[in-house]
Amino acid sequence: MKRTAFFISDGTGITAEALGNSLLAQFGSIQFNKVTLPYIDSIDKAAVAVETIDQAGLDDGYRPLVFDTVVDEAIRKVISTSSAYKIDVFSSFLKPLELELGSHSSYSVGKSHSINEVNTYMDRIESVNFAMENDDGGRTQHYDKADIILTGVSRCGKTPSCLYMALQFGIRAANYPLTDDDLNCPTLPEVLQPFQDKLFGLTIDPFQLAAIRHERRANSRYASLDQCEEEVRSVERMFRQQQIPFINTTHFSIEEIATRIIAQKGLQRRIK
Amino acid sequence: MKRTAFFISDGTGITAEALGNSLLAQFGSIQFNKVTLPYIDSIDKAAVAVETIDQAGLDDGYRPLVFDTVVDEAIRKVISTSSAYKIDVFSSFLKPLELELGSHSSYSVGKSHSINEVNTYMDRIESVNFAMENDDGGRTQHYDKADIILTGVSRCGKTPSCLYMALQFGIRAANYPLTDDDLNCPTLPEVLQPFQDKLFGLTIDPFQLAAIRHERRANSRYASLDQCEEEVRSVERMFRQQQIPFINTTHFSIEEIATRIIAQKGLQRRIK
Repeated sequence: MKRTAFFISDGTGITAEALGNSLLAQFGSIQFNKVTLPYIDSIDKAAVAVETIDQAGLDDGYRPLVFDTVVDEAIRKVISTSSAYKIDVFSSFLKPLELELGSHSSYSVGKSHSINEVNTYMDRIESVNFAMENDDGGRTQHYDKADIILTGVSRCGKTPSCLYMALQFGIRAANYPLTDDDLNCPTLPEVLQPFQDKLFGLTIDPFQLAAIRHERRANSRYASLDQCEEEVRSVERMFRQQQIPFINTTHFSIEEIATRIIAQKGLQRRIK
Repeated sequence: MKRTAFFISDGTGITAEALGNSLLAQFGSIQFNKVTLPYIDSIDKAAVAVETIDQAGLDDGYRPLVFDTVVDEAIRKVISTSSAYKIDVFSSFLKPLELELGSHSSYSVGKSHSINEVNTYMDRIESVNFAMENDDGGRTQHYDKADIILTGVSRCGKTPSCLYMALQFGIRAANYPLTDDDLNCPTLPEVLQPFQDKLFGLTIDPFQLAAIRHERRANSRYASLDQCEEEVRSVERMFRQQQIPFINTTHFSIEEIATRIIAQKGLQRRIK
């Protein structure tokens, strides 16, 4: 059984996807073919979308699911003519919210973040620049400006976690890789010592680390299970000795790593 | 009138935030104080959350709003004892979906993306590496492996857009900055010529460009309005002459830039 799920929006489709994915994840036994249709912002585009949806239903032999976050009522009406089973976010929640807030909604699209404002944009850009310039221990002289410094062995997820924190939350995140030399030393690397309170460690299952490193440098010592096991053992010992809080990233997505660090360290987001 | 809105989840809180922000954006006249409470995954944490919510209600003089994507029913029940006005995503949509799909939901948390799988993780990491290594024209020899090459003047949004496409969608995005020299030349820069079909242009309002550049290098020629106007005029002429599709990023968020490029170029996402 294959069913197609459409995430339909007059904006980016990100909200429809997030909501739809959360709900569909509850039905692990069913395979969904997921299709995002963003920027459905006219009656004409909606009519084309309806054709696409109905065709998927014919192909699948099951009616598709539609997760709809279109704001405009006229466009939603067109979407609702499709044969799909429809979860209509605005119909479900907006009227009751209007009552609760004693205010009419403006039915405006794409205001879900106020990221158009120059200030927020700047925060984001600044944070992305910071993450890129302070990636992989490349520079260490700006650690005083960091909100957080991630550390751990090579390929444990530091870089994408930093970039995600920067892009999504405007957090200034640096990262410093711990090498064999660092790990064989009983003290923290000197450049990190003044910033003990900003440090956060990432660790990972050695098997997964070996698999990830293998993609990068196949059959190298660097990617060998022995080496990975040794590094992970050493780095976790260092985290404990130096009282650096850390999480194991093996079963976490980048989103989870980032949000857990933020929650655990109580970091202030510059973008909400 | 100030009202506090809580986004509550047993996972990252990203879905609750996306949904809540979309709905609240419809009420532009009301100031919301937004608070995300992620990882509310036990009865105890839920009880603490309820205290926080109720306190906000007392402080504001209005009952708070709660956008709840907690999967576990027992935890949701605790949340529902708060004084808040509650939008409960799973109660609203999960039962009807169960009926439609003829399947019981597994009530499992944090599966909204299957990004725990090593393959997807690899795609993500590879794409992030690609974006970082091929940022700002630093390297150009791997453009054959790029899904897309963004181009435009300095500070028009190329780097964050590339990183976002990489992190969120697993797209391999390079970017190449067009300098004065490039813009004074009647042909495309040589390194870009073989990749005409991968090029996508970004342009921006000169005033906003000047403001952004001013943050970087205050009072420089680089940040002057004259210089910005001249560059933007030249780059848009080049995009038209060379038939490079482009968008104006002035009023778009990074999410919008990325998703519009993907839609317009029909790029295939490696992460869904």
